[in-house]
Amino acid sequence: MEEEVRKISVKLPEPSLRRLPWYLAYLKLLKDKGELYVSSTQIAKAIGVDASQIAKDLSFINISGKTRVGYKVDSLITVLENFLGFNISHKAFIFGVGSLGAALLHDTGLAQYGLQIVAGFDIRPELANTTINGIPVFHLSDFVQKQKELGANIGILTVPVDKAQEAAESMIAGGIKAIWNFTPFRIRVPKNIVVQNISIYAHLAVMFNRLNVTKAK
Amino acid sequence: MEEEVRKISVKLPEPSLRRLPWYLAYLKLLKDKGELYVSSTQIAKAIGVDASQIAKDLSFINISGKTRVGYKVDSLITVLENFLGFNISHKAFIFGVGSLGAALLHDTGLAQYGLQIVAGFDIRPELANTTINGIPVFHLSDFVQKQKELGANIGILTVPVDKAQEAAESMIAGGIKAIWNFTPFRIRVPKNIVVQNISIYAHLAVMFNRLNVTKAK
Repeated sequence: MEEEVRKISVKLPEPSLRRLPWYLAYLKLLKDKGELYVSSTQIAKAIGVDASQIAKDLSFINISGKTRVGYKVDSLITVLENFLGFNISHKAFIFGVGSLGAALLHDTGLAQYGLQIVAGFDIRPELANTTINGIPVFHLSDFVQKQKELGANIGILTVPVDKAQEAAESMIAGGIKAIWNFTPFRIRVPKNIVVQNISIYAHLAVMFNRLNVTKAK
Repeated sequence: MEEEVRKISVKLPEPSLRRLPWYLAYLKLLKDKGELYVSSTQIAKAIGVDASQIAKDLSFINISGKTRVGYKVDSLITVLENFLGFNISHKAFIFGVGSLGAALLHDTGLAQYGLQIVAGFDIRPELANTTINGIPVFHLSDFVQKQKELGANIGILTVPVDKAQEAAESMIAGGIKAIWNFTPFRIRVPKNIVVQNISIYAHLAVMFNRLNVTKAK
């Protein structure tokens, strides 16, 4: 039990943590191909991350490769999935069931990575008590009650940009501990709240800009 | 004309470029509230980015504030939208019309930021020559022909992870210049190809891990 707590208390640096899913995706490909062992050099070559960086990232989760043979593919997948929490179901609510919110409710792929969207909330009365892809949608005023019943601590923020800050504050007041922000607005939250900003608009900016720069050359 | 070329040739550092959409989102809120001027200090306070950083980022696009009054909200919005290319339509193809690909075809919000998805491609014969949300879906074997007709240079990669590298290579061979990678696989591409990796899995990893760390304390 003490070991368990120690394991999950590891505060991995965020850049390392963000790279782990890349390693996992590649390891699963290797497993499908029947590979038993993999070296950090091999991972490095396949996904374009420095081998020493990979070894360092993996050392944080108490995994070390053996000389010559490297890491055991199977074990490394299990350890990574456990560490990342991708094999445990984490309940989430969606706030804002517009075009993007509804699209996310249709995407069943997130559940494979441990994210279970259990309900959506919106202020439009016509959406209340409907379902999208089998997931119930409620009026925002039902959030506190549904939170008691369902107990989600992740909130996906897909409201219009002018409602983003206000919605984030309601979410936190209602017990949401981690906000996945899909709006282009930079929300302000207390320090104990986890925020991940999806970079849709940043990605579009980079692609459009770099394409133009290439053309102008 | 020369000035035009000079403007779009500005190779802004990527971190600065990625922050510009945050400023734009906030400026649009201010405009809706009827505000005429804004200072970098005011933007800084609202979105939690250092004021000197904001002034520096904006100086890259030849915008400077006036002493005391700051930036003119209206003009800054226009300049940012032009610079970011959000008011110009950029054609994109989606490769892989599974759960996530279909969800993205349903999201009409991307068009408001200049991304126009003009077709989807998939290898499943039953999807060929159907439409989703009015957007045509073709068999992957029609890509080269459709590229001649439609001329998209952005490709959204939503194939299964074991097909990601192969699909990326076909996309590039067919004339795609920028790949928006929604798979957890780290694709390898030639230097002249722009890649943006969506961080869905990294975000889940960070949220799950940080929530566990908080609990374990």
